[in-house]
Amino acid sequence: VPSFFEKLDRAMTRNRSLLCVGLDPDPSKLPAGAGLLDFNRSIIEATAHAVCAYKPNLAFYEALGVEGWHLLKETIACIPEDIPVIADAKRGDIGNTARAYAQAIFEQLECDAVTVSPYLGLDSLEPFIAYREKGIFILCRTSNTGAADFQDLAVKSDGHELPLYQLVARRASEWNIHGNVGLVVGGTCPAELGTIRRNHPAMTLLVPGVGAQGGKLDSILAAGMDRDRKGLIINVSRQILYASTGSDYARVASETAEKITREINDIRDDVEQV
Amino acid sequence: VPSFFEKLDRAMTRNRSLLCVGLDPDPSKLPAGAGLLDFNRSIIEATAHAVCAYKPNLAFYEALGVEGWHLLKETIACIPEDIPVIADAKRGDIGNTARAYAQAIFEQLECDAVTVSPYLGLDSLEPFIAYREKGIFILCRTSNTGAADFQDLAVKSDGHELPLYQLVARRASEWNIHGNVGLVVGGTCPAELGTIRRNHPAMTLLVPGVGAQGGKLDSILAAGMDRDRKGLIINVSRQILYASTGSDYARVASETAEKITREINDIRDDVEQV
Repeated sequence: VPSFFEKLDRAMTRNRSLLCVGLDPDPSKLPAGAGLLDFNRSIIEATAHAVCAYKPNLAFYEALGVEGWHLLKETIACIPEDIPVIADAKRGDIGNTARAYAQAIFEQLECDAVTVSPYLGLDSLEPFIAYREKGIFILCRTSNTGAADFQDLAVKSDGHELPLYQLVARRASEWNIHGNVGLVVGGTCPAELGTIRRNHPAMTLLVPGVGAQGGKLDSILAAGMDRDRKGLIINVSRQILYASTGSDYARVASETAEKITREINDIRDDVEQV
Repeated sequence: VPSFFEKLDRAMTRNRSLLCVGLDPDPSKLPAGAGLLDFNRSIIEATAHAVCAYKPNLAFYEALGVEGWHLLKETIACIPEDIPVIADAKRGDIGNTARAYAQAIFEQLECDAVTVSPYLGLDSLEPFIAYREKGIFILCRTSNTGAADFQDLAVKSDGHELPLYQLVARRASEWNIHGNVGLVVGGTCPAELGTIRRNHPAMTLLVPGVGAQGGKLDSILAAGMDRDRKGLIINVSRQILYASTGSDYARVASETAEKITREINDIRDDVEQV
């Protein structure tokens, strides 16, 4: 069985794509007559040739109650075996509780990767990292305005001073003893993305915040690509899912995913890396 | 309908108790023959006279898959109306996603309060805080060893330097415009607990880490009580749930909860506040 990062790399190459589609169902935005599972299944079928990963955010399923957990399991079952699934869960709790979360996401939901929060430190992340074949993306610099409240503050560590998000990246890299740790860095802050890429040339960065949140592909790619012009998983949710609110939503989602993938690839071919 | 903090205060007074029981089911520790819902229901019935709140940690339910969400809903339904329920979820995500998490916890699960993570800043917390009648406990200084990795580091803010956890407490207090925000502070670090109490005399502190994790009641109470000898929700999970692994588990849980409540009250009556 291939690991998350093997699966990811193969899908990136096979589909020539760095695009991840965020599967975030919003009942208020569904095309008339479509059920949530049908909608997710159609989106997956329409985009599977153009993506490197899917990323359901658990919040949107939990908001639907018990039914939402059924929907999440059934949605994950619709995703082709050879495309990895990243559970966007942003979990973070102490050791024995973190173990239960890891079990929920890797064993119950059978996801290939997860997002986690660093605030509780190493022992809250170890139970996830211990699943060597899974991918662990640690929140580093997020795409929202509140990111500045704590992540950008200067902290002192080992006699040096640096922004908290950079220290989180450094620790994540030190804790990456199995090679299965990546970082979440928002697409709305290319300067911070560039700094993280320079400091951590080989780390895979999961980048939300493109499209609806305002992140621009050219600056993200210039700042964030690694030396192989990869190393980025660029997530787009609403811009693809709700590209059309008519009955043609799957076709329009497919075209939008292809267009974004082409746009990314054109920039990959052209741009000077920073 | 009373708010979370009204419900909490009434339960604290009625039961003369600062004890919160953590409802964290562990299938491997269940007494022979007991089902998970029966176990939770028996624990609730056996302890409801001796507690001020219940705190299910969502991780232990999620680890059971879709069945776990059913169990969680059914467990919450077993809790008497006049005892508040704190969803220990430690969620933290950007605005529209945080809204979905708040909806999941307050509307689907109908919990009275929630724990949240501060790493993403104010706009990740606002959708929770907007539920004025609910309680929002922001992670501040946690009970695990990894807490030191980031929470204890000196950060610079507004020209001052202070540990990150103290800045989180200060911001939480500034963001507490509806009076519904509290803090999570581990019982394993009474010095930090005392600092937070001195800086924030009126804030309610949710204190895990007692018992199995090593927190001591006398130092917690001396450091953390407010001027009314309250202001603390002291959580105990395993020490009560698994006090006996025989068929007498409910009776022993009841006696253990009463014993801890008495111990807390003896200290409340006696101790000099720090």
